[in-house]
Amino acid sequence: MSLREKYKTVRQHTEDLLKPLSTEDHLAQPMMDVSPPKWHLGHTTWFFETFILKNFLEDYQEFDPTFNFLFNSYYETVGKRLVRDQRGNMTRPPLENIYQYRAYVNQQMDVYLSGDPDPKSLELLELGLNHEQQHQELFLTDFKYILGVQPFYPVYREDFEESKVEKGKQEWIQVWKGTYRIGFKGNGFCFDNEKGRHQVFLHDFEISNKLVTNGEYLEFIEAGGYRDFRYWHSEGWAWVQENQVEAPLYWEKSEGKWQHFTLAGLKDINPDEPLAHISYYEAYAYAEWKGLRLPTEQEWEAANELFKWGQRWEWTNSAYLAYPGFKKEEGAVGEYNGKFMVNQMVLRGASVATPEGHSRPTYRNFFHPHLRWQFTGLRLAR
Amino acid sequence: MSLREKYKTVRQHTEDLLKPLSTEDHLAQPMMDVSPPKWHLGHTTWFFETFILKNFLEDYQEFDPTFNFLFNSYYETVGKRLVRDQRGNMTRPPLENIYQYRAYVNQQMDVYLSGDPDPKSLELLELGLNHEQQHQELFLTDFKYILGVQPFYPVYREDFEESKVEKGKQEWIQVWKGTYRIGFKGNGFCFDNEKGRHQVFLHDFEISNKLVTNGEYLEFIEAGGYRDFRYWHSEGWAWVQENQVEAPLYWEKSEGKWQHFTLAGLKDINPDEPLAHISYYEAYAYAEWKGLRLPTEQEWEAANELFKWGQRWEWTNSAYLAYPGFKKEEGAVGEYNGKFMVNQMVLRGASVATPEGHSRPTYRNFFHPHLRWQFTGLRLAR
Amino acid sequence: MSLREKYKTVRQHTEDLLKPLSTEDHLAQPMMDVSPPKWHLGHTTWFFETFILKNFLEDYQEFDPTFNFLFNSYYETVGKRLVRDQRGNMTRPPLENIYQYRAYVNQQMDVYLSGDPDPKSLELLELGLNHEQQHQELFLTDFKYILGVQPFYPVYREDFEESKVEKGKQEWIQVWKGTYRIGFKGNGFCFDNEKGRHQVFLHDFEISNKLVTNGEYLEFIEAGGYRDFRYWHSEGWAWVQENQVEAPLYWEKSEGKWQHFTLAGLKDINPDEPLAHISYYEAYAYAEWKGLRLPTEQEWEAANELFKWGQRWEWTNSAYLAYPGFKKEEGAVGEYNGKFMVNQMVLRGASVATPEGHSRPTYRNFFHPHLRWQFTGLRLAR
Amino acid sequence: MSLREKYKTVRQHTEDLLKPLSTEDHLAQPMMDVSPPKWHLGHTTWFFETFILKNFLEDYQEFDPTFNFLFNSYYETVGKRLVRDQRGNMTRPPLENIYQYRAYVNQQMDVYLSGDPDPKSLELLELGLNHEQQHQELFLTDFKYILGVQPFYPVYREDFEESKVEKGKQEWIQVWKGTYRIGFKGNGFCFDNEKGRHQVFLHDFEISNKLVTNGEYLEFIEAGGYRDFRYWHSEGWAWVQENQVEAPLYWEKSEGKWQHFTLAGLKDINPDEPLAHISYYEAYAYAEWKGLRLPTEQEWEAANELFKWGQRWEWTNSAYLAYPGFKKEEGAVGEYNGKFMVNQMVLRGASVATPEGHSRPTYRNFFHPHLRWQFTGLRLAR
Repeated sequence: MSLREKYKTVRQHTEDLLKPLSTEDHLAQPMMDVSPPKWHLGHTTWFFETFILKNFLEDYQEFDPTFNFLFNSYYETVGKRLVRDQRGNMTRPPLENIYQYRAYVNQQMDVYLSGDPDPKSLELLELGLNHEQQHQELFLTDFKYILGVQPFYPVYREDFEESKVEKGKQEWIQVWKGTYRIGFKGNGFCFDNEKGRHQVFLHDFEISNKLVTNGEYLEFIEAGGYRDFRYWHSEGWAWVQENQVEAPLYWEKSEGKWQHFTLAGLKDINPDEPLAHISYYEAYAYAEWKGLRLPTEQEWEAANELFKWGQRWEWTNSAYLAYPGFKKEEGAVGEYNGKFMVNQMVLRGASVATPEGHSRPTYRNFFHPHLRWQFTGLRLAR
Repeated sequence: MSLREKYKTVRQHTEDLLKPLSTEDHLAQPMMDVSPPKWHLGHTTWFFETFILKNFLEDYQEFDPTFNFLFNSYYETVGKRLVRDQRGNMTRPPLENIYQYRAYVNQQMDVYLSGDPDPKSLELLELGLNHEQQHQELFLTDFKYILGVQPFYPVYREDFEESKVEKGKQEWIQVWKGTYRIGFKGNGFCFDNEKGRHQVFLHDFEISNKLVTNGEYLEFIEAGGYRDFRYWHSEGWAWVQENQVEAPLYWEKSEGKWQHFTLAGLKDINPDEPLAHISYYEAYAYAEWKGLRLPTEQEWEAANELFKWGQRWEWTNSAYLAYPGFKKEEGAVGEYNGKFMVNQMVLRGASVATPEGHSRPTYRNFFHPHLRWQFTGLRLAR
Repeated sequence: MSLREKYKTVRQHTEDLLKPLSTEDHLAQPMMDVSPPKWHLGHTTWFFETFILKNFLEDYQEFDPTFNFLFNSYYETVGKRLVRDQRGNMTRPPLENIYQYRAYVNQQMDVYLSGDPDPKSLELLELGLNHEQQHQELFLTDFKYILGVQPFYPVYREDFEESKVEKGKQEWIQVWKGTYRIGFKGNGFCFDNEKGRHQVFLHDFEISNKLVTNGEYLEFIEAGGYRDFRYWHSEGWAWVQENQVEAPLYWEKSEGKWQHFTLAGLKDINPDEPLAHISYYEAYAYAEWKGLRLPTEQEWEAANELFKWGQRWEWTNSAYLAYPGFKKEEGAVGEYNGKFMVNQMVLRGASVATPEGHSRPTYRNFFHPHLRWQFTGLRLAR
Repeated sequence: MSLREKYKTVRQHTEDLLKPLSTEDHLAQPMMDVSPPKWHLGHTTWFFETFILKNFLEDYQEFDPTFNFLFNSYYETVGKRLVRDQRGNMTRPPLENIYQYRAYVNQQMDVYLSGDPDPKSLELLELGLNHEQQHQELFLTDFKYILGVQPFYPVYREDFEESKVEKGKQEWIQVWKGTYRIGFKGNGFCFDNEKGRHQVFLHDFEISNKLVTNGEYLEFIEAGGYRDFRYWHSEGWAWVQENQVEAPLYWEKSEGKWQHFTLAGLKDINPDEPLAHISYYEAYAYAEWKGLRLPTEQEWEAANELFKWGQRWEWTNSAYLAYPGFKKEEGAVGEYNGKFMVNQMVLRGASVATPEGHSRPTYRNFFHPHLRWQFTGLRLAR
């Protein structure tokens, strides 16, 4: 597929994902980390306008100069921006303007890509498409959260399957100690945080062939895991107490039966399916309770060909830090990853919300340890 | 006008007020005190359904049992309710359902009122209509606030005039000391907080025939009034510092010129128009700076026939407290007023947003001293 | 007693009150409203130094120029000051310096008063002595709070009696409607907030001859008063829930028996003694539960000769506002009262902690409605 | 030195450090992370009483059963404890009781150690002594902070030298890539977080022979480093803005000259001395500005014999996480380190406040990235 076609496909996919939404559904922001769908639509478009069209397409006419303020996420380089927690209040411009914005930028991009595009701009195009795919995933998890605060358990799509049972027995995969190579190799696209392929020394370890399931986690709940400080980080224990956490996000017990809210509505918990929507604190506490541990991101990467992955982002026991030799990109896109390298933990894998082909074995996802609105699960090691 | 006609007129007026809004405009809540227009639509309807139809119309079928949760404002008696700051996230049910709800309740009310309505229900009907008129005013001020956070100064209605110049010279009206009667008299509707007509003794005082104007207030600003603690309550001074307040709400200085945001868009300040959007703290500080004071609500009421009022809610120097002989209504509507009688100040008069005929000389409006998103101004006394 | 003798007596009384304290006891500040005893010692001394010695005693040598920063409470006129919640951390200068400061200022005051003092300074002297008496009361209540946070129920003085049973039956005192005069009269000292004697019209009312007792309040607790929103202000109910309030401050139930912490240690509740340590919210809720109400401050003052008072500050249903004709004093002492006239409620009477002769029938005490570390009780009216 | 003698020496050293303090100095807690000196005295004693005497000395009589509540820091296993931010309000028991407690526990420990102590108890004794040494360092930094909030720049000890100029030129030390062994080896004491000696692979790197100096950091300040987001983590930038940070802790500019508060009072900044009192965010931003980076803790440990260290805790770019094979100790002392392994960064080295012989090349200190009241500095790598 040419980049021009790929551009069309990715951009169209975003709009397809939003088809089931009402106009109003586009405008809610029930917590600061969640962005309204309307904002995702505008922001991903702004990325192409700002970093490609404005810089590389001669005589490009900006669609609307106020949009830079509205749809800049966090790029200090690119000027002032709307404070994050006000995104849900932007009733103007109306949604149809945002779609006009998309159409206009798409058309201009098509003009640009039909010509003789600058190689530097094609790198930014790849980045922009991967960026849009990240927002496709964020849209799904944000929108699940938005539906989750409605009092009626509304449905996004009746046929949305959040997970599948992993067949076969749980087994331990042995990995021998030695020097392994970590980080992206090859010619395709990757983010700057994956670059700088390097060696690490790993000791013998074993890693599970399967993700932890709902049923296994229920044992932890029923054994009083949320009421026993011994399994928790000090900050995790404070988080449990302050938020009165008793189960993963979206779980609720009604008449003795555990159910969870999904993008297909409220469903009974299937004990055999992989667990989701836990924080790093919970992942760690569960592992402590089992007398086991989470893998590091290096262990995960070294072993990833030995098990199946892709249903769930998997918390690792690695903090999100620069690889040796990490270099920020020049200019505004240098703000993409590096400035978040503190106080966050790495997740590896992919989830049901990740666009096909978007992730890879070296992909480094990262979130603060208390967050759990993503499809986050865990795999044990020892 | 019969009550049945009055019901139709008032209910229709709400919908007329919302006509200029886009679907998205119905769903923003940029601060907790502001409710989304969609919520006003539902809540005012819920009032009639809950207090009249459910209690008085035989075999009444509730429109949707979940609406009690969504549209109860603060009536503890009537069950659990949505937390206030989540009103802006209720994308479901969609707006058209709320209009169906209105149509259904209106139709059922019409059936009920065509019959032989219980006299008690007619009292509640009057209350419900006055309640809806209060929400018409709140809608306008809330919606001004919603438009005010948009980055583009959008317009509600080009022809919306927020105020008119009061003609003639400022003069002091003399009122002689003596015993005055305060509180509602007559047979029409009034709120419970106006009842219990009683005597008060007032000393000689003078009250201005005119509201304080923008131009007069500008002198206070330019004299450094916001930077001199001597004019402020201790809590007012803390409020100024913490919020870096330098002018009334919606005012901004651009290239040396003061402008303010109005429902007709951004306009130059007219120095001769009455001032609006100030907190009680600012009203008090301005009066201190002038060496004058605010009237008490009793002084205002005793003198109200001697000046024109109705353009602006006027801060008084009276705390919102029960009149001698105040009695809460029985049942849930007893929660209407009494439970707010602490930490709020009384405002008298009316504003451009007040529906015609809704206010009266004994009407007691009240807000916390730091709030200023209503059309609030002041009249001096001495 | 001459003013010079009165000065010595009042100043000595402060030091006598602090005799039972260890050096460390002088330095705790477990909540912001509480000041460490050491600070009370310095601040009351600073008052005389700042307002009298510096202004009226020729060639007066300031004791230490840094003390103005440390011991200014809230007088913006007098310069910068320590932020309030850091008072408990001022380990330097040491306590003995504060006593030297007191001795030095006392000696200089004696010099000054032996001469031919300026009449204006004598007014400030009266104010300073009354100010010190207010701090004597604050010291006792603050120190009770300090001891109350220690885990061992320590004793201030074994023989400290916080209250006495009011003998005789509860009866209602009838007061007839008419015009009453309110505010200070006579030649003695009073605060500016009592001045401007004026007329008010009161309607018929009855007021109890006795304060509400512990036993009566226990009935409210046992009837579930803290769990029934109907008796509470909206803000009072939020306060109960947020702070999980279930009883007056210092009360605790242990093995089915109610006890309370007092300045003489932990004691059983005596049901016949007057109730103390309740907030305005609780006073109001209790009255609502009884179907009665609190008196206004004007009713209280008009009737005060008809009942005994002085054991407890009594919450009234009056907000703390200016009397007609209220004028701030000139200069810094103008900050004494006026700037607190918002969001507070008036208490009348006196308490066990009030120095003898300090209060009077026109005395207006005031606190925010949620505070209860003072000896606050209530008297019912109807 | 026998363990019995070592016990006496370490315990005596704590008391020696506190000699310059007044009684009041023992009781301040100006921020939550700072503990009052009195609490350090009690808590270190409690450690020996709780983990050794109560478990190993037959018929041991607890000094005071209430002390477990007062002096337990964070051991959930050992029962309820005082909330952390109330430590500064514990005026009772008086300081002399804490010294009696120390004397009593010391005497009982001497009895115990003169007998035939259980080998398990001797491990705990080593831990207790190292624990007390950690609190000696904390005492010095806490007390610097306490003095720092006093308005008069008081002096702890006139002859206290916080740092020494590192002589010689700045040079880069080359370290070649390869597998290195990390973690404690040998027979002496170490904390559990150093255990599990293991291999890591390091790539070529260079590390500075010298710490960054005040003068070098001043260049960063003067180049506008605190006002340029490009050098900061996203969270670091928010921290700078929210706290209006413009220089290291304790630095102030007065009449164009930079000074800093030290334990010997206010001093001019010596540009050649090593920098101290910076947060991880500042260390990172400085390195970014220089186009360099911080070393990882593994790099630091691998290279530590090639440079001099010990004047300053050095921020590394490593998050505080478990080594491969990390195991918590059994029982309450298992809470010593493991539960803090999230959201903190590792520091290596030692500081002027570290007791002699307490640190070692494998020692892992750790703090949250925003904290800077320790003697924290940085060494660059590339």
